[in-house]
Amino acid sequence: MKFAMEGTMQDATEESRPAAYAPTDRTVPTRSAKRASYDKALVHAILDEGYVCHLGFVRDGAPVVLPTLYGRVGERLYIHGSTGSRPLRMTGQADPGLPVCLTVTHVDGLVLARSTFHHSINYRSVVVHGIAHEVTDPEERWLALDALVDHVVPGRAADSRPANSKELAATAVIRLDLEEVSAKVRTGGANDEPEDLALPHWAGVIPLRKGYEAPVPNDDLTPGIELPDYLATL
Amino acid sequence: MKFAMEGTMQDATEESRPAAYAPTDRTVPTRSAKRASYDKALVHAILDEGYVCHLGFVRDGAPVVLPTLYGRVGERLYIHGSTGSRPLRMTGQADPGLPVCLTVTHVDGLVLARSTFHHSINYRSVVVHGIAHEVTDPEERWLALDALVDHVVPGRAADSRPANSKELAATAVIRLDLEEVSAKVRTGGANDEPEDLALPHWAGVIPLRKGYEAPVPNDDLTPGIELPDYLATL
Repeated sequence: MKFAMEGTMQDATEESRPAAYAPTDRTVPTRSAKRASYDKALVHAILDEGYVCHLGFVRDGAPVVLPTLYGRVGERLYIHGSTGSRPLRMTGQADPGLPVCLTVTHVDGLVLARSTFHHSINYRSVVVHGIAHEVTDPEERWLALDALVDHVVPGRAADSRPANSKELAATAVIRLDLEEVSAKVRTGGANDEPEDLALPHWAGVIPLRKGYEAPVPNDDLTPGIELPDYLATL
Repeated sequence: MKFAMEGTMQDATEESRPAAYAPTDRTVPTRSAKRASYDKALVHAILDEGYVCHLGFVRDGAPVVLPTLYGRVGERLYIHGSTGSRPLRMTGQADPGLPVCLTVTHVDGLVLARSTFHHSINYRSVVVHGIAHEVTDPEERWLALDALVDHVVPGRAADSRPANSKELAATAVIRLDLEEVSAKVRTGGANDEPEDLALPHWAGVIPLRKGYEAPVPNDDLTPGIELPDYLATL
């Protein structure tokens, strides 16, 4: 069944692929439904702009949420970590895998309304529900590890020493397919009640700024090694 | 029992209060233990620098992770939302409350090593495990709602119209006490293997920049209302 589905997806042409994820009970929000989207292009853009997700899983009946890096290859997300870390060890031991929820959030601005009630945040988030599986195929593990590095700094995987066999043995890779997925986006200014518009309080948006500061070379960097272009242009 | 504990904490002098959270099985990491901390001052500083957390809970046996705002008052975190939203409704219905995991993460820099394996992220995170309770006491609800607004923009709660009875009725507030808590912090440059130091790859840290851009007034802002000082100095 699983193999057949994968075969079907690989055989499909770009045109025949659906442009949106099918909504499910878990991905239809109980409120602010107008902010929800299942558009694949939007989901991919939100995922590709970040590299730290919050991964949720259940341990001894209680939820655990940990920040971790991720990479995307098509409709697959990859996470890696020490073979000794809890979610990775639990994924390897679980059959058929570990139920997870992976969430990525960008905060774009503070929305200040005249009323306390209508204060808000402009944001873009993606929530992925699914079963995480350990990746054991050597070729897919290499693909995932390169994707994880290049997701943070495009071009870096080719400009660093690849993992050796000892490092590979210490690293677990897990995969989460993008199937049950939703995005949620809020943009724009404050939406105050009509009767509040004349109140003497400032209203508007404070946009948030994100970016990079000047690179700090390692103390032990070999003299003469210059900052590569893919870092200088970040 | 609960009341007695609260009484004890309130009666304690600053000096007699422990400066650290007691580690538990859930808050001692399986790896990178040297990066873990239970120091209350550090935990508070990390929590106070952010205002968006990722809240994890279990629904129908599966994990759910949602971004949401939070505020802190002493050793209590507050979250609010529509009475119709899932985690808030579930908290109100759960007895004695809803098991949650609340995580706050700041990403401070990208760590580029000569080896792919030693690439990392400089970050500060706090993970809080516990049982979320709905807050029904009117006074504590006001305290929480003001804290939520002032956590994002200090001084704003006093400069906006307070919630009216209809808005209060539509808003649920939940509380999570800071008891089972840990912080995790990575700082510094790349830690490459000695035999990799001479490799011809740049190594170091790209610090991340966070901040605010120029405020954007609402289209319907009453002419003459100037930006208040607490926003101009953000």
